[in-house]
Amino acid sequence: MNARAPLRVAMIGYGFMGAAHSVGWRQAPRMFSLPRDIEMAVVVGRSPAAVADAAAQWGWAEHATDWRSVIARDDIDIVDIVTPGDSHAEIAIAALEAGKHVLCEKPLANTVAEAEEMLAAAERAAARGIVSMVGFTYRRVPAVTHLRDLIAAGEIGAVQQVRAAYRQDWLVDPQAPLAWRLQKEHAGSGALGDIGAHIIDMAQFVTGQTVDAVAGVVETIVARRPLQDGGSGLSATAGDGYGDVTVDDLAIFTGRLAGGALVSFEATRFATGRKNALTIEVSGDRGSLLFDLEDLNSLQFYDRTAPVDRQGFTKILVTDPSHPYVSAWWPSGHMLGYEHGFSHQVVDFVNSVADGSRPHSSFAEGLAVQRVLAAVEASAERDSAWVRVGAMATASA
Amino acid sequence: MNARAPLRVAMIGYGFMGAAHSVGWRQAPRMFSLPRDIEMAVVVGRSPAAVADAAAQWGWAEHATDWRSVIARDDIDIVDIVTPGDSHAEIAIAALEAGKHVLCEKPLANTVAEAEEMLAAAERAAARGIVSMVGFTYRRVPAVTHLRDLIAAGEIGAVQQVRAAYRQDWLVDPQAPLAWRLQKEHAGSGALGDIGAHIIDMAQFVTGQTVDAVAGVVETIVARRPLQDGGSGLSATAGDGYGDVTVDDLAIFTGRLAGGALVSFEATRFATGRKNALTIEVSGDRGSLLFDLEDLNSLQFYDRTAPVDRQGFTKILVTDPSHPYVSAWWPSGHMLGYEHGFSHQVVDFVNSVADGSRPHSSFAEGLAVQRVLAAVEASAERDSAWVRVGAMATASA
Amino acid sequence: MNARAPLRVAMIGYGFMGAAHSVGWRQAPRMFSLPRDIEMAVVVGRSPAAVADAAAQWGWAEHATDWRSVIARDDIDIVDIVTPGDSHAEIAIAALEAGKHVLCEKPLANTVAEAEEMLAAAERAAARGIVSMVGFTYRRVPAVTHLRDLIAAGEIGAVQQVRAAYRQDWLVDPQAPLAWRLQKEHAGSGALGDIGAHIIDMAQFVTGQTVDAVAGVVETIVARRPLQDGGSGLSATAGDGYGDVTVDDLAIFTGRLAGGALVSFEATRFATGRKNALTIEVSGDRGSLLFDLEDLNSLQFYDRTAPVDRQGFTKILVTDPSHPYVSAWWPSGHMLGYEHGFSHQVVDFVNSVADGSRPHSSFAEGLAVQRVLAAVEASAERDSAWVRVGAMATASA
Amino acid sequence: MNARAPLRVAMIGYGFMGAAHSVGWRQAPRMFSLPRDIEMAVVVGRSPAAVADAAAQWGWAEHATDWRSVIARDDIDIVDIVTPGDSHAEIAIAALEAGKHVLCEKPLANTVAEAEEMLAAAERAAARGIVSMVGFTYRRVPAVTHLRDLIAAGEIGAVQQVRAAYRQDWLVDPQAPLAWRLQKEHAGSGALGDIGAHIIDMAQFVTGQTVDAVAGVVETIVARRPLQDGGSGLSATAGDGYGDVTVDDLAIFTGRLAGGALVSFEATRFATGRKNALTIEVSGDRGSLLFDLEDLNSLQFYDRTAPVDRQGFTKILVTDPSHPYVSAWWPSGHMLGYEHGFSHQVVDFVNSVADGSRPHSSFAEGLAVQRVLAAVEASAERDSAWVRVGAMATASA
Repeated sequence: MNARAPLRVAMIGYGFMGAAHSVGWRQAPRMFSLPRDIEMAVVVGRSPAAVADAAAQWGWAEHATDWRSVIARDDIDIVDIVTPGDSHAEIAIAALEAGKHVLCEKPLANTVAEAEEMLAAAERAAARGIVSMVGFTYRRVPAVTHLRDLIAAGEIGAVQQVRAAYRQDWLVDPQAPLAWRLQKEHAGSGALGDIGAHIIDMAQFVTGQTVDAVAGVVETIVARRPLQDGGSGLSATAGDGYGDVTVDDLAIFTGRLAGGALVSFEATRFATGRKNALTIEVSGDRGSLLFDLEDLNSLQFYDRTAPVDRQGFTKILVTDPSHPYVSAWWPSGHMLGYEHGFSHQVVDFVNSVADGSRPHSSFAEGLAVQRVLAAVEASAERDSAWVRVGAMATASA
Repeated sequence: MNARAPLRVAMIGYGFMGAAHSVGWRQAPRMFSLPRDIEMAVVVGRSPAAVADAAAQWGWAEHATDWRSVIARDDIDIVDIVTPGDSHAEIAIAALEAGKHVLCEKPLANTVAEAEEMLAAAERAAARGIVSMVGFTYRRVPAVTHLRDLIAAGEIGAVQQVRAAYRQDWLVDPQAPLAWRLQKEHAGSGALGDIGAHIIDMAQFVTGQTVDAVAGVVETIVARRPLQDGGSGLSATAGDGYGDVTVDDLAIFTGRLAGGALVSFEATRFATGRKNALTIEVSGDRGSLLFDLEDLNSLQFYDRTAPVDRQGFTKILVTDPSHPYVSAWWPSGHMLGYEHGFSHQVVDFVNSVADGSRPHSSFAEGLAVQRVLAAVEASAERDSAWVRVGAMATASA
Repeated sequence: MNARAPLRVAMIGYGFMGAAHSVGWRQAPRMFSLPRDIEMAVVVGRSPAAVADAAAQWGWAEHATDWRSVIARDDIDIVDIVTPGDSHAEIAIAALEAGKHVLCEKPLANTVAEAEEMLAAAERAAARGIVSMVGFTYRRVPAVTHLRDLIAAGEIGAVQQVRAAYRQDWLVDPQAPLAWRLQKEHAGSGALGDIGAHIIDMAQFVTGQTVDAVAGVVETIVARRPLQDGGSGLSATAGDGYGDVTVDDLAIFTGRLAGGALVSFEATRFATGRKNALTIEVSGDRGSLLFDLEDLNSLQFYDRTAPVDRQGFTKILVTDPSHPYVSAWWPSGHMLGYEHGFSHQVVDFVNSVADGSRPHSSFAEGLAVQRVLAAVEASAERDSAWVRVGAMATASA
Repeated sequence: MNARAPLRVAMIGYGFMGAAHSVGWRQAPRMFSLPRDIEMAVVVGRSPAAVADAAAQWGWAEHATDWRSVIARDDIDIVDIVTPGDSHAEIAIAALEAGKHVLCEKPLANTVAEAEEMLAAAERAAARGIVSMVGFTYRRVPAVTHLRDLIAAGEIGAVQQVRAAYRQDWLVDPQAPLAWRLQKEHAGSGALGDIGAHIIDMAQFVTGQTVDAVAGVVETIVARRPLQDGGSGLSATAGDGYGDVTVDDLAIFTGRLAGGALVSFEATRFATGRKNALTIEVSGDRGSLLFDLEDLNSLQFYDRTAPVDRQGFTKILVTDPSHPYVSAWWPSGHMLGYEHGFSHQVVDFVNSVADGSRPHSSFAEGLAVQRVLAAVEASAERDSAWVRVGAMATASA
């Protein structure tokens, strides 16, 4: 591979995440100074017509239906996986073994065992200079990065407790259909794995500590829903046009960080009126920090060491070009949106490919999240008793 | 007792709560039209000098040091108890048996057994027309009352989940002394009983449902603190001037409402920067409602039945004189503060005394909170396993 | 007058402001340590029945209908004037000449000439140790006092611009009746004098600078309104049951501070949805400060001298007992409301009476506001041309 | 021109606005279904090296230094002008006469006379099916479009007053250099024309009414600033390395809408702490609406016709895919940022080119803003007296 040649990308999958990743690949080279050019080479999907449409719409040069043959091509440098979680392991391992750099959408996998295999493959590949990353893009919202840096710099002192929640409401309607995301065999879990994974990762990322044990409950609020499109492929349990929801709608759990602090977690699709409300508040003995995804250009910082008559939550607008991610965009006060994180992810990924460094949001970190998710489910099955995350490692790991 | 004569009040205790209750007794008759006049007759405390000062400062006509003799007086109609929780049962039962109407500060008692005895006494007294009430004053913040009314009117439909927290930060300083509130023998519990009790009561009050089971954890973050004033009366465990904190700093627990919905609870004195942050959000299948004590003149209402392009959280300023509590105060947009709830409590209490009705915030409701608190502690001791609240009833009850 | 004897107060008038002042007289001695006791001696009003009710409701020992005879009494130390503005001058001057300390509700008067006479009387009285004060109570909201102190301490550097508004909406309803407040002969002016006066005073108070010139416009949005109660005493212009509104509904004007900075002012009763929205933002070369009466327990502070990645508006909750006004009330995070300013006003007034000092919010400051109001009206009549405030002094002054 | 062929775009200029427009041209065809393909054909700039860099960075196929020869090319369909205002007229008129569709960044021109000539050219071109548009992109923020639609639908009734401000703080630092934007000969005006233009346009756009008269003041707060880069090309007035600021820093003015309502306007670069704070609040007799650019994904709506105990400002998150602009992006609750308006502008522009319709944000509307700006300056020169906007039309117009 010529270090000067463009990096050619194949994206496997083309749903909502495909659109978002495409923006990242398209925008990052145009807004940032990247060490390598990018070519959006090929998008892969099962339906020939749909993938052709996706290629035309999003600007991929080619389209294909067989991901194995694409991975086998010599002219592909990067494989970007945006398929549902149950196919991540197979594709990612094959791509890594083929010497491709891999960006894999979260969750890393649907099971701990798969994630362990993926990590092993990533470690073998890393020894050959191959880069891998899992797509926890919220880490790359400038305000989140800044929050992490402030904690690392000691601005809030020792972390004493954390409060994290991700709340949505798209399932409040009892007539919302039984989509594949509500079937355990396809989605692995519900609110827990889909959005709970984000707050587990964020808690670990910003504090720099692992969640070592958890106790909690998962809950399905609406147990049966109308089948979609006749229900083909879904587990209809009766002839009434309804099927069973087999994943959770809501997960409430408590975690213990390595440093000893407790974390309260809540992931829900039933918080009426909350659309995409990820919030995290980290309380330390010198201050605290708060982030809210619905106000994603800012964070709030409380400095306990300030004079008492000046203490308060400072709303820091993280749109100043002094921030590395922000510098490529607009002047101070001009807001960034949801998809900017996907550009920042591409920037970090490509920089690592170019300089051989290992980016954060690694497969190891993806596996760590997977183990926490498994521990929450184990606790829920054990009447909410505490479960150590380390106990989730499989025998083979 | 002549229905036309003024009601004469004796207040037992004179700490922070004594000041707040005094405002209630002083202001309510001046701002509202009460069916009976009020006389602030006597304040009772152990220290003769201090209680004399309190009487002079707050406007009680007399002061005394022996609560038993005060309760025995014929000219006292109402006994208002603002002492620490460990003396509530003895005073309240004696007062009720002496035929006095009793207003007792929360928590009702330090143990379930005491609370059960108090309820039994209150029930016996009620048969003779005697009124009793426990001081959950936050119920009487106009925005909270309005929120409860909106739920009762079906505005948010069936409750599907609740999120409640009460967060303060006054113990973040590790040099904060080992006050009696941090000693189990005096305070019963820590954040759990002091502020957790408020959110348990509020969740039950606004939903109209009991918390039937809980699972959770309690935590002491700073385990040893400097003794206060040489530590007299406190359990110093060594000669180093420090003693053990024997109550919790933080409690995180999940509750199950009678109707099936889960409630996440957090009570903490370690949420750096949060001074008095009681929040509750109730999510239903038709809408949701949110209250925040740091913004106590308003509530937020989300109406899922509105047209989709007009849905959002409406910040309702509950300062309109159309609200019964507000009507006695100021024009719309003029803010009420913390202590107004104490006036409203007096209004409701006196109205009940006058018309023989039974006010909400009853001893039965106080006992229900006490049992939930006990169940949380039991769950914490059982590795966070679920505990049924009903199991907390003592054998005698 | 015996310095040890209680101060006996007579309040002239008993409307909305009478209720608020009564709370101040009742609460201040009970919550603060005052150098002198207070007796709420007598309330005065024209209607014998109504003033008797007011006395009974609010706790004044006596009631009377002739203010002149009350002022003549030897046993009255303080006269508190809460009548409409057109009677302020006559009562205040008489009271001052009778040697009474005078607290006069704002606006000081309806005309500059009257205000000048009042100031002259106050100055003559001050030479004899008599205290006078005009009731700009918003100065005594703790957050406002703190904001003023931060500016005085140089925290925001030199003031470069100010933005002030007071917005209400109680006249949006075109069927709101033609109350006396909407008739120039009784009220002097409309939004300008009623609420514009507050923001003029606050701008001058917090910056420590006078408004030296103004340019602006006043506007009546709904010109005719239904007569109230048959319209007795009001200027019905036709037999249709409607009469002319003769005061402004809205005033927009710009001021020039003595130090050179421009101030934008808006006072309106037509800001739909805004109930009592007084806001002021002061921008300096080192920072800025913001106050919002609908969030009255806090202020916001922006410190330009902080590191750029930590700059932002800090919401300072001014409920910490380290603040002099707050210390008498509740622990940190417990909110104060609208009427607390009236207690603080009593505290400052009584302290001045006791120690002979001259309190801020003087008649001179009240006159200064009056002249700005007159200058705004003059500018409005001159096609919004700039008018110097000094030019508003009458020939006799 | 073949209706099926791609539309080929030439962009003249490549500063901050060039970057933003490039995002629009790049993203719109990938996120929306456009009736015609887009080719980013050529970018034009004076410096050969810099424009080559811009082409490579932003993805323009070619670069050139002579805009006249580019306009003369047959293979160019659209000319997008992002140069400083003093060159807009010459380029736009030439492009229109050459039969190119023209998108011109705001302000339309630096003078009314130029803007009038541009409008005349646009009208002649329109007769031949040529589309023109001025770049008031904030109109195309989804929340702003929705706000306008709600007003048009009568949701707030008759507009009675408006409050609009655009506040920044990038000139608070007195050592900020004397850039060309601070020199009248290059920039035309300061805060007034740069950001005041936006709020004038927005007030007219959302109310559907013209500003017919204005009165106000403009102000230069820091009069002299250090020369940049030795001051070449700038009007240094002395040898001290400093030069005169010849534009305004702050403009405060009041406007009168055609329907009679008053509008308060403030445009400032000295609002310490405010980075890009465009706010507009429109008050009507049935409700009000508020938009804040620092919270650009939402608007606030107050409905006076709701039951009194449910009235309040509803924060409507305009991220629901039911909104036409939003539908192309992400699920509900996923935030859009500053540059999305540039994509929406391209969508509307290209749709008009394809179907021959005339888009809003026309040159006529650009001229209307220009006349208001001129009227404000005229009023400021006339001691803030009112000036009719119609009087700003030049003799030739």
